[in-house]
Amino acid sequence: MSAETVATFPTARLAKSVATHPLAPLSATELASAAAIIKASWPAHTDLYFKAVTLEEPPKSEVLPYLEAEHNGQSLPPVSRRAFINYYIRNTSKFHEAIVDLNTGRVLRNVLLGASVHANGDGEEIVAIEKLVLDDPGVKAEIAKLQLPEGTVVISDPWIYGSDGVQDEDRMYQCFLYMRDPLNPSEADSNHYALPLPISPVVSTETMKVIRIDLLPTGVDHTIKPTEPYKIRPPNEYIPEHQTLRTDLKPLNVVQPEGASFQVAQEGTSSVLSWQKWKFRVGFNQREGMVLYDVRYDNRSLFYRLSLSDMNIPYADPRHPYHKKSAFDLGDAGAGIMANNLKLGCDCLGSIYYLDAVLSDDKGGVIPMDNVVCIHEQDAGIGWKHTNYRTGRAAVVRSRELVLQSIITVSNYEYILAFIFNQAGAMEYEIRATGILSTQPVDDGVDVPFGTVVHPGVLAVHHQHIFSLRVDPFLEGGDNRLVYDEAFAMPRSDFNPHGTGYFVKETVIEESGGYDTDYEANRTFKIQNMNVRNPINGKPVAYKIQAPPFQKMLSDKDSFNYKRAEFSDHNIYVVKYRDDELYAGGKYTNQSRGGTGVRAWADRKENVKDTDFVVFVQAGINHIPRIEDFPVMPCEILKIHFKPVNFFDKNPALDVPPSEQSFNKSVLMSEQHHQPTVEAMIGQDGSCCVPKL
Amino acid sequence: MSAETVATFPTARLAKSVATHPLAPLSATELASAAAIIKASWPAHTDLYFKAVTLEEPPKSEVLPYLEAEHNGQSLPPVSRRAFINYYIRNTSKFHEAIVDLNTGRVLRNVLLGASVHANGDGEEIVAIEKLVLDDPGVKAEIAKLQLPEGTVVISDPWIYGSDGVQDEDRMYQCFLYMRDPLNPSEADSNHYALPLPISPVVSTETMKVIRIDLLPTGVDHTIKPTEPYKIRPPNEYIPEHQTLRTDLKPLNVVQPEGASFQVAQEGTSSVLSWQKWKFRVGFNQREGMVLYDVRYDNRSLFYRLSLSDMNIPYADPRHPYHKKSAFDLGDAGAGIMANNLKLGCDCLGSIYYLDAVLSDDKGGVIPMDNVVCIHEQDAGIGWKHTNYRTGRAAVVRSRELVLQSIITVSNYEYILAFIFNQAGAMEYEIRATGILSTQPVDDGVDVPFGTVVHPGVLAVHHQHIFSLRVDPFLEGGDNRLVYDEAFAMPRSDFNPHGTGYFVKETVIEESGGYDTDYEANRTFKIQNMNVRNPINGKPVAYKIQAPPFQKMLSDKDSFNYKRAEFSDHNIYVVKYRDDELYAGGKYTNQSRGGTGVRAWADRKENVKDTDFVVFVQAGINHIPRIEDFPVMPCEILKIHFKPVNFFDKNPALDVPPSEQSFNKSVLMSEQHHQPTVEAMIGQDGSCCVPKL
Repeated sequence: MSAETVATFPTARLAKSVATHPLAPLSATELASAAAIIKASWPAHTDLYFKAVTLEEPPKSEVLPYLEAEHNGQSLPPVSRRAFINYYIRNTSKFHEAIVDLNTGRVLRNVLLGASVHANGDGEEIVAIEKLVLDDPGVKAEIAKLQLPEGTVVISDPWIYGSDGVQDEDRMYQCFLYMRDPLNPSEADSNHYALPLPISPVVSTETMKVIRIDLLPTGVDHTIKPTEPYKIRPPNEYIPEHQTLRTDLKPLNVVQPEGASFQVAQEGTSSVLSWQKWKFRVGFNQREGMVLYDVRYDNRSLFYRLSLSDMNIPYADPRHPYHKKSAFDLGDAGAGIMANNLKLGCDCLGSIYYLDAVLSDDKGGVIPMDNVVCIHEQDAGIGWKHTNYRTGRAAVVRSRELVLQSIITVSNYEYILAFIFNQAGAMEYEIRATGILSTQPVDDGVDVPFGTVVHPGVLAVHHQHIFSLRVDPFLEGGDNRLVYDEAFAMPRSDFNPHGTGYFVKETVIEESGGYDTDYEANRTFKIQNMNVRNPINGKPVAYKIQAPPFQKMLSDKDSFNYKRAEFSDHNIYVVKYRDDELYAGGKYTNQSRGGTGVRAWADRKENVKDTDFVVFVQAGINHIPRIEDFPVMPCEILKIHFKPVNFFDKNPALDVPPSEQSFNKSVLMSEQHHQPTVEAMIGQDGSCCVPKL
Repeated sequence: MSAETVATFPTARLAKSVATHPLAPLSATELASAAAIIKASWPAHTDLYFKAVTLEEPPKSEVLPYLEAEHNGQSLPPVSRRAFINYYIRNTSKFHEAIVDLNTGRVLRNVLLGASVHANGDGEEIVAIEKLVLDDPGVKAEIAKLQLPEGTVVISDPWIYGSDGVQDEDRMYQCFLYMRDPLNPSEADSNHYALPLPISPVVSTETMKVIRIDLLPTGVDHTIKPTEPYKIRPPNEYIPEHQTLRTDLKPLNVVQPEGASFQVAQEGTSSVLSWQKWKFRVGFNQREGMVLYDVRYDNRSLFYRLSLSDMNIPYADPRHPYHKKSAFDLGDAGAGIMANNLKLGCDCLGSIYYLDAVLSDDKGGVIPMDNVVCIHEQDAGIGWKHTNYRTGRAAVVRSRELVLQSIITVSNYEYILAFIFNQAGAMEYEIRATGILSTQPVDDGVDVPFGTVVHPGVLAVHHQHIFSLRVDPFLEGGDNRLVYDEAFAMPRSDFNPHGTGYFVKETVIEESGGYDTDYEANRTFKIQNMNVRNPINGKPVAYKIQAPPFQKMLSDKDSFNYKRAEFSDHNIYVVKYRDDELYAGGKYTNQSRGGTGVRAWADRKENVKDTDFVVFVQAGINHIPRIEDFPVMPCEILKIHFKPVNFFDKNPALDVPPSEQSFNKSVLMSEQHHQPTVEAMIGQDGSCCVPKL
């Protein structure tokens, strides 16, 4: 039952004396305070199971004046400080949503959510389920039929149950079973995905008991064979001890002898990053992982907020229980809580700065998350070049980029997520998919059109990875519009007598909705501000979006997949800004029904022209597995670009110092090349590319 | 007149004692020999103007057995050694094509080409035209009407004339005029593109005289104003002396303390490159620049030959003379002869190896081209990663790439062209467009839908960059096929009751023709060999092509642009292999009419299934200029990928040594992060990512 409690709690005192930025994630103290406030609103000894304790971001209407004052060095107006909490009464299905005011200690909201609204998974629960499944007598009996060798270690991968409308109101897990290499069962990192078993227990999280044991189809159709002795195939290990490693790779070090060019000002739980005219704030939370706020270039405002909004991975096998495989890795798990600790030199190269975070645990305590974001520069090749062929003089600069990277492990898969900035005013969001394919057992000789056999007895089913990036622009102000440009051939006419002419036409998006790229028309979306004009050509300042093409959600429109992954059917969604509309798949994705995400918001058909709107940019991969993706897949890379259009008065990277040998210190590999002409061309100031006169 | 001369010439002796590889470009001696053989076929003192002297590649039927023997260490069969020559009788329009046998000294072919077949441009001629245009009395008189300040330096950019069927049979140049900053006329590298003039002389190359002076439209339509006093606007310089350079960029060095991991074996004019199981031969010629031959991975054959085939850049302004702007930068100029000398540290970063080349000049002599290709490694982020969440153990490798890069300057524009290889058996062709927009004068206040004003008085017209990469596969043998996979939703049925299923269907391409990507179906083209099967899943070995989408040629189908740029209307062209069909736009592109390139070859409708075929992969940019592209544009990047599909038996990068701090030597930027847990996790062998037990 819900309780509107007027409980007060001492105002949290922060470790640092700096005032907490309104957008900074909750500190350890605040996390604990928030949980304590909620606990206090229940009878003592009520066992609460916390699923999320996170900042309830203040309304934009409060934050904008704060940011204004912050940038102008004026006194900072007060901004509310609130926490959002999701929790269960442990061992019940009573799932609550609460908001507390951290300044006053008041509970502002504390409601029991509807019966079919479920919380995300979490590590505690998953570990417990792994164990209970393998301890279950029914499961053990079924496993026994496999007649596995003595000492075999069976591994359980609990999966979010998914939705299909078939007795799926309760919160459950569908566990997939695998085993370690039976000849090496003590190898804790044996690749169990190479040895999938045809038994799949279902667990109810309310009772934490196995409620059903599914058997998996392993042929070409829905036929389920009774569990029979398991045919053991070879293992397929990825850990280096099992490889004959290459011995001819020489080290490559990135060295910054004068340090890196960026500055990080840590302010409690958020940090302000300054680099090459870019300036923005970085936060980190349980669900979204990295979030960027107040992104500016040369003190000109570009974005209010940037974050990955969710991702959905539906699978192509229509047979039970696989038809339910459709993971929402942010909503079901959380990009923050799943973030890797990035070890020095292993994940990031060069001069590295790490950011830590604090998240909440299931008991209302705090989990320190170290090294969840790494920050570094990288060289990205030539930035621009021109050689005047008459003089031979080349002007060339290299492109230096700033990278903020986080890596999440969601069971078998990894995603490497990065915001990348360059010196030409452009920003990029890069996604790399790697890790291990989700596998299922298959009979020998079976070939199906919805998956690939990647190892004897192992089927990797086709699946789509669909990502949604939430972009809340503030392009030189709050009144922005979204337009798209298209290029069309001119018809033949007196004006175009040779049939070679073409022109660009702009279309303004007036109404919220889903929109698509169209490469046949070179359709390019731009965020624009009509109030600010380019001083050279009078065009409104803009940033264009280069979103890669992808095949939209293949599940049909009546399917749960389609209804739930509301972002998956368009390249672009644009909606009028409303506080608290952050997650394109809806706030609660676990076993959801849809209707609470971006498609629903867009269906309000509100005006988005010359106002405050949010763009969701989608990108995706239809992953048709190949042998080379197993046992671990080489990174598949997606990039979404944001580039200035008539925002500056010239190439903003024109003032990058020229690329010079004295600066770059490249080394010549070949002795044969004495290159006297090059040496003659190194000027007295150490610059090169100056022709000898 | 043609002359079949039985001239003999002493067999050329190479500087090195190694026998000349049949695919190696002509050596300096061979170049000179070839020219001498042709000269000898004419009366003495006939002034021949050489436009091209290059290897006439031997028939594939001769080369394949040679390569087979070469790789098996057997005795090498003899292969013909022939040169291809294009030349004029100087100061005439008599353009010839010849082939000579360098072993025997015989002239095999020496024909006068048709009246409307013209040679590419070259540096000598362009420099001469620049001068003669500015010396022409008629041009001077017209310039005088501009009333430019005393001492103004006018610059002439000669452009290939183009085709429009209007008195365009003779070989001509359309020269565009600009001026240096009149306040700084002695600055030889002043950006003259910021000050375009409305006068455009036309030169006949037969007479080397100005035959016409065009005036340029500067308004919104075809109206030509009489030349009037020029309104001088500010300059827009790109050289660093004119910038207030950033001072906060710290050096970033790429250091390979043990040297690079690749080996280069120079064998005369070609080199064999070995790196991380890749092995291939590199050549370089006048037209194509870099060419890769005999590309293998782990001694398994992948490609016979790889090269950029041509590029076409048609412009959107339909008005005379701009409707003719449609450059074929390889056919009209040459990616080899236009290649930059890549200075140490300026263009390439790290441990660099340079390749030189020798090309021919207009007199039958030799031009040394130094440092035209740079070879180096680069780090490309994480190659693959997986963390077992139960143990916390991460297995991660970094992706190391090998880059072969060449940069061409084609008047105002630059293209950075690179073949990039990685450790997962994948290859990439990367194109970066940079340099300076082609500009034309525009009146104040004019806004046109076919261009952007990028500076006061300067219009940069929209244009398409369309590239064609020629891919001659030899995937584990010569019988290959081209297929495409598409993914389709299953209909609802008993098999697919929830509407979530989807499947992949393969279509075999039987006939030569043009084909397109279709992202709505995830259409993916693959080169496949049905004779070689994957040992795990029995699928035929394949490599898939990831070609980016682009808007096809907008000029209409009746236009010269469309007829000439035969590759510009499809993402993929596939044709049955024939010797000597290298250039997708035809062998002679200057003022061409079309009909001799890939579209014509494809129209032969030959079988391309399970045989020897060639694929032309197109990629492009519809360049709608923005202010940020001026005065020099930040690189715009295109990539075409080739990735193995069921070619290997697992991830081919699995044996890359794990990423380790002792190897990578990253530096921690922040002192706050003592990271005791990381140090505890560095194993005795220097490896990290090993959990402390």
